[in-house]
Amino acid sequence: MNKKGLLYEGKAKKIFETDHQDVFWIEYKDDATAFNGEKKDKITGKSRLNNLITSKIFEVLKKEGINNHFIEKLSDTEQLVQKVTIVPLEVVVRNVTAGSLSKRLGMEEGIQLEAPVIEFYYKDDDLGDPLINEDHIRLLNIATPEQLQTMRSIALKVNQFLIQLFQDVNVRLVDFKLEFGVTGNGEILLADEISPDTCRLWDIHTNQKFDKDLFRRNIGSLTEGYEEILTRLGGSSS
Amino acid sequence: MNKKGLLYEGKAKKIFETDHQDVFWIEYKDDATAFNGEKKDKITGKSRLNNLITSKIFEVLKKEGINNHFIEKLSDTEQLVQKVTIVPLEVVVRNVTAGSLSKRLGMEEGIQLEAPVIEFYYKDDDLGDPLINEDHIRLLNIATPEQLQTMRSIALKVNQFLIQLFQDVNVRLVDFKLEFGVTGNGEILLADEISPDTCRLWDIHTNQKFDKDLFRRNIGSLTEGYEEILTRLGGSSS
Ligand SMILES: Nc1ncnc2c1ncn2[C@@H]1O[C@H](COP(=O)(O)OP(=O)(O)O)[C@@H](O)[C@H]1O
Ligand SMILES: Nc1ncnc2c1ncn2[C@@H]1O[C@H](COP(=O)(O)OP(=O)(O)O)[C@@H](O)[C@H]1O
Ligand SMILES: [Mg+2]
Ligand SMILES: [Mg+2]
Repeated sequence: MNKKGLLYEGKAKKIFETDHQDVFWIEYKDDATAFNGEKKDKITGKSRLNNLITSKIFEVLKKEGINNHFIEKLSDTEQLVQKVTIVPLEVVVRNVTAGSLSKRLGMEEGIQLEAPVIEFYYKDDDLGDPLINEDHIRLLNIATPEQLQTMRSIALKVNQFLIQLFQDVNVRLVDFKLEFGVTGNGEILLADEISPDTCRLWDIHTNQKFDKDLFRRNIGSLTEGYEEILTRLGGSSS
Repeated sequence: MNKKGLLYEGKAKKIFETDHQDVFWIEYKDDATAFNGEKKDKITGKSRLNNLITSKIFEVLKKEGINNHFIEKLSDTEQLVQKVTIVPLEVVVRNVTAGSLSKRLGMEEGIQLEAPVIEFYYKDDDLGDPLINEDHIRLLNIATPEQLQTMRSIALKVNQFLIQLFQDVNVRLVDFKLEFGVTGNGEILLADEISPDTCRLWDIHTNQKFDKDLFRRNIGSLTEGYEEILTRLGGSSS
């Protein structure tokens, strides 16, 4: 597989075309951003950590029968994925109150939810990724009701699996964000990344944070937190 | 029926107890507020207009078989209503893009929607009445899924009826907000008010605004707009 032109540069990754029309080459970046790009920094080593953690998680999800875009890890900072047309939704799953949920509903952080809460955000930087509901999704023609149902059900399956995966290494999965795409066949496929950039991960005993809140809130070393997650998950996958 | 103690004073109305335990006495106020109370003014005559318009609309809804809390108009500024426990939701129905929908989704105002859009806002001034979804409603224990379904279906019925009512007098029903309550029997009942404070109403030909946006945006006389609505609806009900 050969890397070809840069197709898109996002806040955290670069997407390159390859000589295979259904395959993209993703290069993780050392950039950290928060609050819709208002807070920015370069953090050496972040690209490696997110690439390795995402690769690990997508691999085990695949083994568990949860299909996703991941094909293979190419290097510490690169991976091959199946090309999809990204559905412009951030699908957030929450098990514990934190962040914008706490602000929106006036609940303190850290309260265990009886059932997972799913939220859909419209992936649009100019609009600040607003929360939307299913009527808005229909109005914007973002996804059909069936596609939405598929995303919900995959999101809940991923949640069940990841809760266990992290619990086994003494980490509490507080919340996370998924992105989905549509394949050439018209199928909904889990895509993008699952990393400490896109999850809230707390030590199960001490509530120590190992995720992007370290950067958002300036409360500790991002790379130390992410490294801890990589180590607990068994280190770099081969 | 005798008026007793003041139970609650809101931004637009005062609620008094009566000597009948299931009946409240509502007194409309001349206060106008917007942006969660940040913009405020006293507007003489507003109480009369909203009381007369709400009374009229709730009466015709009742005649159409859409049950609601309205009992009778007592004076230009007062009415009797059935006491309910208000469900802390603002149920918004939209037929045309405007206001916060336009902002949230980046759509210009005035676009006709193919199907109505329903939104639920958590009625909490301290939180700024945030948009919430059905998972949030379940988490906050605000309403059961069945109650939510009932509110949705009443809201759509009210919409169908009001679209026609206003169309007949050359007014376009852009959007409106409903509140519901739970009666002593545990039934969901349409409550609060339906007035130019809680609807967007545009002249069908000129798009001239007859609603609270006159005040919010400082674009004309609120009382002239509301008076126009009252007149078109046939003036003061007896
Ligand atoms: N398999 C895929 N096919 C196409 N695009 C993808 C795939 N996986 C992720 N993307 C997209 O790649 C872009 C770059 O990622 P990222 O830097 O995280 O962007 P953003 O700034 O939008 O967060 C995003 O738009 C993401 O949705
Ligand atoms: N039938 C009813 N029974 C009990 N409360 C009601 C009824 N109808 C309306 N209310 C409530 O009366 C209060 C006063 O109205 P308003 O001044 O519009 O308040 P707000 O400042 O919350 O908009 C509101 O909380 C409203 O929900
Ligand atoms: Mg991203
Ligand atoms: Mg009110």
